[in-house]
Amino acid sequence: MSQSQHIVSAFDRDLEAVQAQIMKMGGLVEAATLDCARALEDRDEELARRIVAADRDIDLLEAQVNEETARLIALRGPIASDLRTALTVLKIAAALERMGDYAKNVAKRSTVLAQSGPVGETASTVRRMARHVEQMLKDALDAYIRRDVALAADVRNRDKDVDQIYNALFRILLTHMLEDPRSITNCMHLHFIAKNMERMGDHATGIAEQVVYLVTGDLPDDPRPKGDSTAFVASVND
Amino acid sequence: MSQSQHIVSAFDRDLEAVQAQIMKMGGLVEAATLDCARALEDRDEELARRIVAADRDIDLLEAQVNEETARLIALRGPIASDLRTALTVLKIAAALERMGDYAKNVAKRSTVLAQSGPVGETASTVRRMARHVEQMLKDALDAYIRRDVALAADVRNRDKDVDQIYNALFRILLTHMLEDPRSITNCMHLHFIAKNMERMGDHATGIAEQVVYLVTGDLPDDPRPKGDSTAFVASVND
Repeated sequence: MSQSQHIVSAFDRDLEAVQAQIMKMGGLVEAATLDCARALEDRDEELARRIVAADRDIDLLEAQVNEETARLIALRGPIASDLRTALTVLKIAAALERMGDYAKNVAKRSTVLAQSGPVGETASTVRRMARHVEQMLKDALDAYIRRDVALAADVRNRDKDVDQIYNALFRILLTHMLEDPRSITNCMHLHFIAKNMERMGDHATGIAEQVVYLVTGDLPDDPRPKGDSTAFVASVND
Repeated sequence: MSQSQHIVSAFDRDLEAVQAQIMKMGGLVEAATLDCARALEDRDEELARRIVAADRDIDLLEAQVNEETARLIALRGPIASDLRTALTVLKIAAALERMGDYAKNVAKRSTVLAQSGPVGETASTVRRMARHVEQMLKDALDAYIRRDVALAADVRNRDKDVDQIYNALFRILLTHMLEDPRSITNCMHLHFIAKNMERMGDHATGIAEQVVYLVTGDLPDDPRPKGDSTAFVASVND
C-alpha cells in the first residue's frame, strides 16, 4: 500500500467518526423539529420542557464535531476535496445547532401559548410546516451521505413550499389580530414560531447547498427560490 | 532561519491577508448596521436600496475568506493555535455575513414602512439599538485583532443592553397595536426590524466569544447574560 493511500484511508476513517456524530445531531434535530410543533398543537408543556433540555445535547455534539474536525485537519492535513469535506462538516454542524436553537425557542413559546385558547387552525399549519422542514432536513443529510446533488437540488427547491405556508400564515395572523385585538400577544408568539420554522427550512436548504458545493466545488449561484414575501407586503390598512 | 520559523511566518503572512478581508467585511457591516436604522428613521428609500445592493459585496467577501482560509489550511498545514485561528476566521466571516443579511432585511422592511406614517418613537429606538450593536461589533473586531479577552468579555456583557431595549420596544409595539389596530401591519414590520437588530447583537457577541475561544481555548461556558424575555412574557390580555 502506498503512502498516499494510507493517508487517505486514515482521513476517511476519522471522517466517518465525525459524520456519525453529524447524523446523530441530525436525528436529534429532526425529532426536535416535529416535537416542538406537536408540543404547540397538543399544548404539551412536558414535551416542550424535554425539547428545551435536549437542546443541550445538540450543542454538545456540535462542540465535539468542531473539536474533532479541527483535530482531523491538524493530524491528517487534508487537501483539495478532503479539506472541502472537513470544512463542509463544520458548516453542517453549525446549521444543525441553529435549527436546534429555533426548535427550542418554538418549544418555549408553546408553553406560553398553552396558557390560553388556540388561535384558529394556526397550530396545525405550523405542524404542516414542521413536517416539510423535517423531510427537507432528512433528505439534505441523505444527500450529504450519498453525495447526491440531484436530491440536494430537490431539497433546495422545496424551501419555497415552506415559505409559501409561512406567507399564508402571516396573513391569517394579521386577520386574527385585526378582528380580535385580544389575540395580538398570542399572534405575535405564533408569528415568531412560524418565522422560526421558516428559518429552519432555510438552514436545511443551506445544508443541501453545502452538498452541492462539496460535489461540484461551487455554491449554487442562481438566487435561491425565495418565498418570504412579507418584507415586501403592502400594508393591509392602506 | 529554521524551517519551523519559516512555516510560521508564511502562515502569519497569509493570515494577515485574510484578516484584512475580515476587517473590510466588518467595516461594510458596521456601515450597514447604522445605515439601515437611518433609512428607517429618515424614510430614505434610496439609502435602503443602496444597503440591499451593498450586501452582495459582503457575501462575496465571505466567499473569498472561506476560499482563502481553505487554501491557507491546505498550503500551510497549521496546527494547534494557528489552526484554531484559521477556524475562528471562518466563524467570524459567517457571523458578519449573517449580520449583513439582517441589515438588508431591515432596509427592505424600511422601504415598506416609508409608505406610511411613523409609529411613535419606535424608529429612533431602533436607531439606538443600531448604535449599540455597531459599537459592539467594532469592539469585538478590535478584540479579535488585539486578542483582547477583557474587551471581548465586555462586548458579551453589553448584549443584554440591546436585549433590554428590544424587550421594551416589544411592549411598546403591543400597546400600539392594541390601541390602534390599523397600525398592526406596520408594528409587525417594526417588530421584525427590532428582532433583527437584537439578533445582530447576538452575532457581535458570538464574534466576541470566538475571541475568548481563540485566546483561552474555551468557549465561555457560563450561560450568556440573556435578555430576550419575550418568549416567556405572559399574555397582556389575560
